[in-house]
Amino acid sequence: MRMSNLYLPTLKEDPAEADITSHKLMLRAGLMRNHSAGIYSYLPLGYRVIKKIENITRKHMDASGAQEVLLPILQTAQIWKDSKRWDKFGPLMMRLRDRKDREYCLGPTHEEVVTDLIKDEIRSYKDLPLNLYQIQTKVRDEIRPRFGVMRGREFIMKDAYSLDIDYEGLDKSYQAMYDAYEKTFAECGLDAVAVEADTGAMGGKDSHEFMVLADSGEDQVAFCDSCGYAANVERAVANKELLDFEEENEMEKIHTPDIKTIAELEAYLDLPAARMIKAVAMVADEQPVLALLSGEDELNEIKFKNYLEANQLRAAEEEEFAELFNSTAGFIGPVNLADIRIIADQRLEKIRGAVTGANQKDYHFKNVNIERDFQVEEFADLRLVKDGESCLQCTEGKLNIKAGIEVGHIFKLGTKYSENMGANYLDENGRTQPIVMGSYGIGITRLVAAAIEQNNDEYGIIWPKAIAPYQIIILALGNDEAVAEKSEEIYQELEAEGWEVLLDDRKERAGVKFNDSELIGIPLRLTIGSRSLENGEIEAMIRENNQKSKIKIDNLKEKTAELMAEIS
Amino acid sequence: MRMSNLYLPTLKEDPAEADITSHKLMLRAGLMRNHSAGIYSYLPLGYRVIKKIENITRKHMDASGAQEVLLPILQTAQIWKDSKRWDKFGPLMMRLRDRKDREYCLGPTHEEVVTDLIKDEIRSYKDLPLNLYQIQTKVRDEIRPRFGVMRGREFIMKDAYSLDIDYEGLDKSYQAMYDAYEKTFAECGLDAVAVEADTGAMGGKDSHEFMVLADSGEDQVAFCDSCGYAANVERAVANKELLDFEEENEMEKIHTPDIKTIAELEAYLDLPAARMIKAVAMVADEQPVLALLSGEDELNEIKFKNYLEANQLRAAEEEEFAELFNSTAGFIGPVNLADIRIIADQRLEKIRGAVTGANQKDYHFKNVNIERDFQVEEFADLRLVKDGESCLQCTEGKLNIKAGIEVGHIFKLGTKYSENMGANYLDENGRTQPIVMGSYGIGITRLVAAAIEQNNDEYGIIWPKAIAPYQIIILALGNDEAVAEKSEEIYQELEAEGWEVLLDDRKERAGVKFNDSELIGIPLRLTIGSRSLENGEIEAMIRENNQKSKIKIDNLKEKTAELMAEIS
Repeated sequence: MRMSNLYLPTLKEDPAEADITSHKLMLRAGLMRNHSAGIYSYLPLGYRVIKKIENITRKHMDASGAQEVLLPILQTAQIWKDSKRWDKFGPLMMRLRDRKDREYCLGPTHEEVVTDLIKDEIRSYKDLPLNLYQIQTKVRDEIRPRFGVMRGREFIMKDAYSLDIDYEGLDKSYQAMYDAYEKTFAECGLDAVAVEADTGAMGGKDSHEFMVLADSGEDQVAFCDSCGYAANVERAVANKELLDFEEENEMEKIHTPDIKTIAELEAYLDLPAARMIKAVAMVADEQPVLALLSGEDELNEIKFKNYLEANQLRAAEEEEFAELFNSTAGFIGPVNLADIRIIADQRLEKIRGAVTGANQKDYHFKNVNIERDFQVEEFADLRLVKDGESCLQCTEGKLNIKAGIEVGHIFKLGTKYSENMGANYLDENGRTQPIVMGSYGIGITRLVAAAIEQNNDEYGIIWPKAIAPYQIIILALGNDEAVAEKSEEIYQELEAEGWEVLLDDRKERAGVKFNDSELIGIPLRLTIGSRSLENGEIEAMIRENNQKSKIKIDNLKEKTAELMAEIS
Repeated sequence: MRMSNLYLPTLKEDPAEADITSHKLMLRAGLMRNHSAGIYSYLPLGYRVIKKIENITRKHMDASGAQEVLLPILQTAQIWKDSKRWDKFGPLMMRLRDRKDREYCLGPTHEEVVTDLIKDEIRSYKDLPLNLYQIQTKVRDEIRPRFGVMRGREFIMKDAYSLDIDYEGLDKSYQAMYDAYEKTFAECGLDAVAVEADTGAMGGKDSHEFMVLADSGEDQVAFCDSCGYAANVERAVANKELLDFEEENEMEKIHTPDIKTIAELEAYLDLPAARMIKAVAMVADEQPVLALLSGEDELNEIKFKNYLEANQLRAAEEEEFAELFNSTAGFIGPVNLADIRIIADQRLEKIRGAVTGANQKDYHFKNVNIERDFQVEEFADLRLVKDGESCLQCTEGKLNIKAGIEVGHIFKLGTKYSENMGANYLDENGRTQPIVMGSYGIGITRLVAAAIEQNNDEYGIIWPKAIAPYQIIILALGNDEAVAEKSEEIYQELEAEGWEVLLDDRKERAGVKFNDSELIGIPLRLTIGSRSLENGEIEAMIRENNQKSKIKIDNLKEKTAELMAEIS
């Protein structure tokens, strides 16, 4: 492609709207433009990268035995009501009505469509297993679209759905996807790791996320430095001792004027946070519920929401402390809290001698013992793990918490959708059985951003070779007609060799050409000027290490192939 | 692909929901399934055909110099208000609001998005010309979705937008697209013809449709049998004489009890229809307007709507004859019709001695002369051409009207969008000029159906080679293990040669395999049974002519290549 024809509006300055490196660079390098919050137009260079990632993904999906389909964006409300997720998705799902007032949504994911599609076609165990995938635009009305395509509202996903006769089949399908994902990310030049993940709105049991580690990542992942345990903190567990201060003193109300937080209480009473019981007032599907944790721990809202099987979970508003909990903000506690569900973190199972709120302004209780002074409905793991905690799996390693970008997510769904929507098959004995399903996603557009987060420097993007929009860029410098001719000749020669080549034939200063070539991150740069021609050699630069070398023009094809082979 | 793994739910019977051949066959051959009115899921075989058409289209678009982008499906209402089409599209456009109550639509087309995208990036005449295209899902809430993907509500389009400095540039861009379209349809194996077309909601001047002729087509196209003139009847013109019966008798009211139609009037008065003035009561953007035509002509509503520059045009309801026209249905006419806009077809420019309604139940006027007895606002071409009429262009040929399927549509938009939305450039003299635009569409999913309408027989689909989901199908017949092994060997051998091959290794009866292979329309079939192995030869059948031949297994690769070369 000759750059004089290419639609490539690069920007010299970081756009004010952009917040992280990949977002800035995707705008500056002319890969995309913003249309509306979280909605982008992909320009020629950006869409080439997307298509490359799509094709690598497609290759590994096909090789795994999955079959490509294309499912509707507009989906009937009925299938979501059948699966019981119409309400669960809440405002994340964009809804609309057609001219006949029939209700639809814009597909945020396609479990319902797939289940509805196959339920009347698959009759027998002989029709299974099956894995259907698509690469398609998804719409989710994110509450805070940000970081460019990292958290967009309209984005491209590869989503696959496996259908099996039993859980053994599901395990195989899941492993096939796990392997295909590892190959896909590796071929894209990404360093991605699989971690245990929460299943969220998908339901089901096992789940892994594929994370690209990067400081800008919105996810937090705990890695054990010894046994290899890796999990999203939404789900991660640590090896923490039960708390018990072995006191049997009488519970006593103490005056704690304006002492509302754990930190204030620590200072005021000169006691460690571990001695406090932190009571967190939450509202789950509009019902009050109290979570108890050690004063040194934080509530993991994802774990709590899953435990409650709630559609919506939020912190109580200040006025709700009185209305719903008959208490007061800053002084809430489990003692004498009638008719409120109380769930405690498992570390509190034997707690004695603790301090907690007295449900009365400016008062706490001390010497509080579980069972004797308050009861809880159940104990569960409700805490967020912290950096440096001991690993529960091996009990030897320490957990390190790192930021990651989720680029893939795989789920063992089980029979949730098939049972709700009636997708059954007849087994070998003629008995009706629900189909066992899995669901597997790759965020294609997010992957573009993740690749940039992992591969950039102060000059711009450094594309991994496999997903670079073009592999080689030729800079024709100066106004010398002979340079222009030679550049064109070399351009055609390298294109004929099968390379994807950009020729910067624009009437621009050398500085602009050098800067743009680095900004857009083409793996190999060949620079031709008047002196090149005199010497019969041109300058090659490898973008990933900025290493320069001279190439004899006579020897160009062979040398280019050699240099390209060096590049990752 | 081994068919034992392929998701291919074929149907023996025509589905009740399907109305035309392509719709029936797309369902029966397992290419797609219906999700909701006009919304389909494309199954593996169907999506392979779509991808082939996309890639052929992409190839010719790239070769023409157009650059591929991907634009949003969710579009802000604002850009449509800027272009003044927010109201014009009416209920055809699906609208919705996000969680912050901001208004969006689902893109029915992308002129607005492209204009909005480039308007701040293109500054100078040096940045032009430019042609941006995409292949993407479009949504239009059709009032009557029907004929499968022919008139769907969610469908795939290739749409391109050219940007030029002037009309000369536009003419070149338009011609480049015209040529690319001809090549695209030809390479897909389609017989498509370009015809003059109405510009509809796009606005602009010149426009051509590419039509695949087929009885099931929803469009009517007039072709001159002499000069090559071809036009959609929405726009077609014929060579028709002015009407004048040269009488200067006094206008006279006549009693015509219950005589409401032109046909009834012909019989009752024993006069030809040409003597009548047909008055058609219409409502344009809620204002009454009367169209006058010869009694032998029909109103072309598209021409009339364009003439009026109306957003909405419809026939008046019965009660509106009194309310809006102060007349009565069946007896409306232009005489004494105060304050109503009256537009007459140009054939009536000199009409004298005519019969028309008296705006009074059971009465008409005769001896009606234009000017003397009634006035009209303007004359225009408002009539529908009819089969057999004389061609206006050459005046020698006759117009034949044939049904066609519109698979492509190209428009010279001009500066309508750039002026409304402020997309300008600075010319060589530093003056601000509006960008001159064109818009070009191919209905990718509709093309699948059109290809089937043109290529089928009583057994099923006959895919043109270039868009067949697979090129070769191998039927392994019987339970002989040696047949299974040989089939697998041949399958792998032909795949290694670069052919796309289906191996029917299912445990099904020979009849089922033969029927399915014909239904799904694979160009070349190779049948292997026990006898094949004994004789060292297999049966080849070319789907397009059902011609059978024997191929020596030893000679398979060469013979297959020869047969494939024969197939169109």
